[in-house]
Amino acid sequence: MELSNTSLAAGIDTVWVLLCAALVFLMEGGFAALEAGFVRSKNSLNIIMKVIMDCTVGMLGYFAVGFAIMYGLDKAGVIGWSGFFLKGDMEYLGLKIPVYAFWLFQAAFAIAMATIVSGAVAERMKFMPYLVFSLIATAVIYPIAGHWVWGNGGWLNKLGMLDFAGSAVVHSLGGWASLAAVLVLGPRTGKFGKDGSVHVLPGHNLPLAALGAFLLWFGWFGFNPGSTLSGLDLNIARIAVNTNLSAAAGGTIAALYTAVKWGKADPSMAINGALGGLVAITAGCAFVEPISAMVIGGIAGMLVVFAVPLFDRLRADDPVGAIAVHGVCGTFGTVAVGIFAEKGGLLYGGGLGLLGVQFLGVAVVSLWGFAATYMLFSALKATVGIRVSVEEETEGLDMSEHGITAYSDLECNPLTALGPVSTIGTLPVGQHQLAEDRIN
Amino acid sequence: MELSNTSLAAGIDTVWVLLCAALVFLMEGGFAALEAGFVRSKNSLNIIMKVIMDCTVGMLGYFAVGFAIMYGLDKAGVIGWSGFFLKGDMEYLGLKIPVYAFWLFQAAFAIAMATIVSGAVAERMKFMPYLVFSLIATAVIYPIAGHWVWGNGGWLNKLGMLDFAGSAVVHSLGGWASLAAVLVLGPRTGKFGKDGSVHVLPGHNLPLAALGAFLLWFGWFGFNPGSTLSGLDLNIARIAVNTNLSAAAGGTIAALYTAVKWGKADPSMAINGALGGLVAITAGCAFVEPISAMVIGGIAGMLVVFAVPLFDRLRADDPVGAIAVHGVCGTFGTVAVGIFAEKGGLLYGGGLGLLGVQFLGVAVVSLWGFAATYMLFSALKATVGIRVSVEEETEGLDMSEHGITAYSDLECNPLTALGPVSTIGTLPVGQHQLAEDRIN
Amino acid sequence: MELSNTSLAAGIDTVWVLLCAALVFLMEGGFAALEAGFVRSKNSLNIIMKVIMDCTVGMLGYFAVGFAIMYGLDKAGVIGWSGFFLKGDMEYLGLKIPVYAFWLFQAAFAIAMATIVSGAVAERMKFMPYLVFSLIATAVIYPIAGHWVWGNGGWLNKLGMLDFAGSAVVHSLGGWASLAAVLVLGPRTGKFGKDGSVHVLPGHNLPLAALGAFLLWFGWFGFNPGSTLSGLDLNIARIAVNTNLSAAAGGTIAALYTAVKWGKADPSMAINGALGGLVAITAGCAFVEPISAMVIGGIAGMLVVFAVPLFDRLRADDPVGAIAVHGVCGTFGTVAVGIFAEKGGLLYGGGLGLLGVQFLGVAVVSLWGFAATYMLFSALKATVGIRVSVEEETEGLDMSEHGITAYSDLECNPLTALGPVSTIGTLPVGQHQLAEDRIN
Repeated sequence: MELSNTSLAAGIDTVWVLLCAALVFLMEGGFAALEAGFVRSKNSLNIIMKVIMDCTVGMLGYFAVGFAIMYGLDKAGVIGWSGFFLKGDMEYLGLKIPVYAFWLFQAAFAIAMATIVSGAVAERMKFMPYLVFSLIATAVIYPIAGHWVWGNGGWLNKLGMLDFAGSAVVHSLGGWASLAAVLVLGPRTGKFGKDGSVHVLPGHNLPLAALGAFLLWFGWFGFNPGSTLSGLDLNIARIAVNTNLSAAAGGTIAALYTAVKWGKADPSMAINGALGGLVAITAGCAFVEPISAMVIGGIAGMLVVFAVPLFDRLRADDPVGAIAVHGVCGTFGTVAVGIFAEKGGLLYGGGLGLLGVQFLGVAVVSLWGFAATYMLFSALKATVGIRVSVEEETEGLDMSEHGITAYSDLECNPLTALGPVSTIGTLPVGQHQLAEDRIN
Repeated sequence: MELSNTSLAAGIDTVWVLLCAALVFLMEGGFAALEAGFVRSKNSLNIIMKVIMDCTVGMLGYFAVGFAIMYGLDKAGVIGWSGFFLKGDMEYLGLKIPVYAFWLFQAAFAIAMATIVSGAVAERMKFMPYLVFSLIATAVIYPIAGHWVWGNGGWLNKLGMLDFAGSAVVHSLGGWASLAAVLVLGPRTGKFGKDGSVHVLPGHNLPLAALGAFLLWFGWFGFNPGSTLSGLDLNIARIAVNTNLSAAAGGTIAALYTAVKWGKADPSMAINGALGGLVAITAGCAFVEPISAMVIGGIAGMLVVFAVPLFDRLRADDPVGAIAVHGVCGTFGTVAVGIFAEKGGLLYGGGLGLLGVQFLGVAVVSLWGFAATYMLFSALKATVGIRVSVEEETEGLDMSEHGITAYSDLECNPLTALGPVSTIGTLPVGQHQLAEDRIN
Repeated sequence: MELSNTSLAAGIDTVWVLLCAALVFLMEGGFAALEAGFVRSKNSLNIIMKVIMDCTVGMLGYFAVGFAIMYGLDKAGVIGWSGFFLKGDMEYLGLKIPVYAFWLFQAAFAIAMATIVSGAVAERMKFMPYLVFSLIATAVIYPIAGHWVWGNGGWLNKLGMLDFAGSAVVHSLGGWASLAAVLVLGPRTGKFGKDGSVHVLPGHNLPLAALGAFLLWFGWFGFNPGSTLSGLDLNIARIAVNTNLSAAAGGTIAALYTAVKWGKADPSMAINGALGGLVAITAGCAFVEPISAMVIGGIAGMLVVFAVPLFDRLRADDPVGAIAVHGVCGTFGTVAVGIFAEKGGLLYGGGLGLLGVQFLGVAVVSLWGFAATYMLFSALKATVGIRVSVEEETEGLDMSEHGITAYSDLECNPLTALGPVSTIGTLPVGQHQLAEDRIN
């Protein structure tokens, strides 16, 4: 084996990117646990199956087509078109690591975007149409937005948009795609009363959800610093710290705010607040100071607390808070780069130039995610149908879609979960009137 | 500290191998969760305890004896015999990393082999005899096969057998050892009806099982690429991609096939299909193209779907599908190297030479695993006994073996799990007649 | 990018430390799962929320203040005082990696110390005062002890105390702080009978607890070897092996001892025995031979088995065994360095010098942890109060503190968990008289 400095450098970078890719992959396990915990037991296995399908079908879609559209040779700034099945010359990518390492890292991002949507459509979407969505999302929807921002010659890339690890490309896209999906799909039965009231259908296993959040936070130490694609770029250290501080601030703010406002520190808000902080810092982690990372994370934590009930009021039923966490915080985080970036940010004397580009970029990406998903879901709805029947929904999707229950010999009480037990977030059963007043 | 290129290289390689070893170790947590989730709640803690014992007793066995037999100085091609307790000169190994790093990586493999068997014998095997098995498996059974294939001077190694990360050495060995164990031990009470019918005793916590599968997939990013023992070998990137694509294909095929054939995408088949893909590509991940990895994984996914009911029909009761996943797919994956290897594979003009060696090698390793385990289990059965009483089995091994239940204050309903609620895989309760027809 | 050997070395070390930091961070997920599993379902979410607060509030506390006190410029050997918010010159640290990487690794340690206490005070401590504790622990209590032992110019550091990765600084400190907290807080209602009997309030989800233990063990592969702060220091390999063997020995001894003594291998003892082994080797992992690591781990496993009932007898109610695992084994492990260290250890002809320093050091650190926590808890008790009401305790802290239950639609039976179902460790319901005899 050669021991030239170039080959040593390639080794360091490849080791770094592969291990970061593994961490990002594990985020799928985190998403699965988070989403399963946040839904009712009768639908928990179904949502996990959808995440597994992102890892299987979605991974194949990104291998066969998605990567080529995202990182293939540019056509007019809007789409890539080479490297299907990872075949052909990739010299133009200018990578210092094997293209396989680059692909694996990117593939783990692609399936994350699909998985974000899986949570929002939980508890009522059919399995097979989801599988079609997962394939098209990883093969087409995500790669097109990705090409614009990260592709060689992508038009937003050329405009100077900064989205280091994907607050826009992964999270805004996934979050606003979730909103579109949810609007076409409709809310879960029992979520909204005829009198306009909002009911909470509480998650069945919050320890599992929390474990998922820990896995996600852990995986983000690959997601953000790994996006340097090099372990020799010592900025990875500050990127990791920024990531961590933003999550800490988001979780702190969400917990404290709910403790002060509602008298109880809300676990699902604390979890989603920390995740919101992670999402928001993803664009700017390489461009801002730690103190800014804390501010960004803190704002994101606050946004989550306000956005979750807002979407409830808008009758957009999102069982896991994906729109708030990924859509709202992803959009905010992308824009925040225009404010906090050390080079070009408004607060650093950079004027409005970068801020304008960030606004434009995240707006376009989000609109694309929303529109493409809206069309795809509408087409699926008009053809194969996307929603289970009310009977199936009542029985639970684990049984109706997979013929099995998640917990065969643990006693589950469907009535507990079906009734209007409480409302917004995770408020006490005894306080549901109070809570409903707060939303309605 | 020196900064010679040699010392930099050693640092890169050691970092790589240690972190991969940690990932492989975490697979034990994955196995524990997977197996616990796939069995009934009353036996779930017992199976976890057995996995913990693999990590404790098994680790010590491989330290004291196993490593010496596997990688010690060769005796006649069949056994190693030096380096007990990691003492003595190891220069002959020609390692570029500290022998401690090599040992840790290998030890995590050794205990994985034992753990494969733990799943197959779940829900009726006594704890203490399992502990004896775990010790002998890691100290003797696995190391002997390992020496043949990977040891300096091992006879299958000299024949040119290719088993990059252990489809044969770890998985076939463990899978066919599982079959032997299960045959000596007998099926769980209630698994097979007197009329020849096959009943399903459904797993009690499939979200936990799925989380285990995610941890296993994550760990495989250490298992396969780590087997280069070098982060400077840039093939680690393609190896990781092959690993990932094979899993994706296996999971896709198993889910789609069950969806089409049974009308329901089967979660445990999807999980085991992905795992089957991981097992099958383990031998060839360094030798085949990504497209071949997908084919290998897809076939493995199919094999799992057919093999699980086959072993049921053969009255080999394997609660978690270990024989199908590890035995069948491990054997297939080893043979597949003879077909798909870029150098020497049948499809690449290599003729039948390599294919023959692969056949021979995996047959010998599997037979060894089967025979050694059959003898050991028979000896244990004849002396201390290996099976709990029917009363203890009915009560559950958590209580009878450990004096505790897994879920103290969650309500478990033993009747749900004991009755002939359904059959094969994880089919709907309402369809059990249909399913039993399918098996019987 | 430069490719000098110095920059390559910095890249290797930074990659190593960041990935190890991520592993240590994941230990928080492990603690959360372990602690949640070991308590009753009605308090399981509350304990997870406390761990989340360590990751959020605690992380901010260590960023703003803690790091400056621990690693800032020394004042008289007792405290550091520079680098608040990571501002200012850090050249004096002599780091070869970015200070951000160093901070992240250290921060994950700081919050681990706080989290140790969270387990001991589970099931009856109010949420908001815990949050205050978490902040002060990471900002002041831990950093002061850390400065003494690891800080530039810390007085125990200058005396030559050896605590490689924190058996004293993290674990003894946290363990004896736990004892203080528990004494001020008082035992859980129903733990001790008026007749002096000790009741077991069994953990509600032991599979979850076990999964937590696997995550902790995995994380320790970052905790100990990562403390070299360099991937080029090839001792990382032996450190990892020592860590692993000590855990293996601790788990083996605890399982075998309980199997022989009580007739049942006790799962929670096996888990805590392995964790005790990990804790005990943390001080000496870089200084002792593997055979010594096994001896240290084995003794730690034994200590856990004896210490858990001992603290019960002393009426110090510690639901998860934190005092035994972290306090007792951490103290033992620190002292053991004076016996087993290859350089300076008693068994290696080093005389009593090092042993004396180790004794002194761990005594002082432990006393500091105990005293500071005792005072803080007493002050909190006298002002805001630290304990929920008996009604809230009966209802469960998930509902009273957070307005939600962990498992909304799984049936939980509070009676099962409230009654004096059994005693010590995790003994059988049917054997509680026997067990109570054993303790009382």
